Amino acid sequence: MQLNAIGVIRSTLKQRTKAPKQGSEGAPDAWLEVRSGVAQALDGIAAGDEIVVLTWLNRARRDVLKVHPRSDPRRPLTGVFATRSPDRPNPIGLHPVIVRRVVKNRLRIGPIEAIDGTPVVDIKPVLCEIQKSRVP
Amino acid sequence: MQLNAIGVIRSTLKQRTKAPKQGSEGAPDAWLEVRSGVAQALDGIAAGDEIVVLTWLNRARRDVLKVHPRSDPRRPLTGVFATRSPDRPNPIGLHPVIVRRVVKNRLRIGPIEAIDGTPVVDIKPVLCEIQKSRVP
Repeated sequence: MQLNAIGVIRSTLKQRTKAPKQGSEGAPDAWLEVRSGVAQALDGIAAGDEIVVLTWLNRARRDVLKVHPRSDPRRPLTGVFATRSPDRPNPIGLHPVIVRRVVKNRLRIGPIEAIDGTPVVDIKPVLCEIQKSRVP
Repeated sequence: MQLNAIGVIRSTLKQRTKAPKQGSEGAPDAWLEVRSGVAQALDGIAAGDEIVVLTWLNRARRDVLKVHPRSDPRRPLTGVFATRSPDRPNPIGLHPVIVRRVVKNRLRIGPIEAIDGTPVVDIKPVLCEIQKSRVP
């Protein structure tokens, strides 16, 4: 089970310690640059779409099974599968974002807390009850 | 970027061709068996929780960049990143499900369209606007 990057995040956020924990917590917009070899897989994505970006959190620790949620030592140790901690056996990030613009093989997206250089491994449309009848 | 299975789906669905396209389209409940080595990462997950299960769709084709959405030839070819097609460069499945029961290192979850034997690579709590203030 080998992931290949399909793109990369280009963001003004350069350090993990300065990134918010979720996109909704004050994160900026960023560019998602898709590799030219897979750019045609973007066909059908347009400004205004809600998508989920899957990233590989390459700074994360994979040997951590319990954390204090939100790095708050007052909270009891909790299994990482019950949290959104980036430290987990397979550090895949899920980022629901809005597409602001599409410029060839680049998507302007946000808000997103992923830092500059984070590899992107997949992009999916958001499915919700209302959309199910029309989203492919 | 190497994924290691953290568990496996045990389902009555045995064939991809018989699986619904989404869990909400008549899929059954299933068991998610977590490897004993990472079982403590489940700590904090309880019956009634909404979680997202990430799977590795090991029967998918990774060289497909465009598909007819929902396998309907009348629909125009669309980039896989604008669809939920299992065929895509990194065939990660996202399955929002409800936890029905927790029995040691096994979660009864559903509804879920993943077929029997599908490797599981991550489990995350669902974040939505209402929950953000209380979910870790």
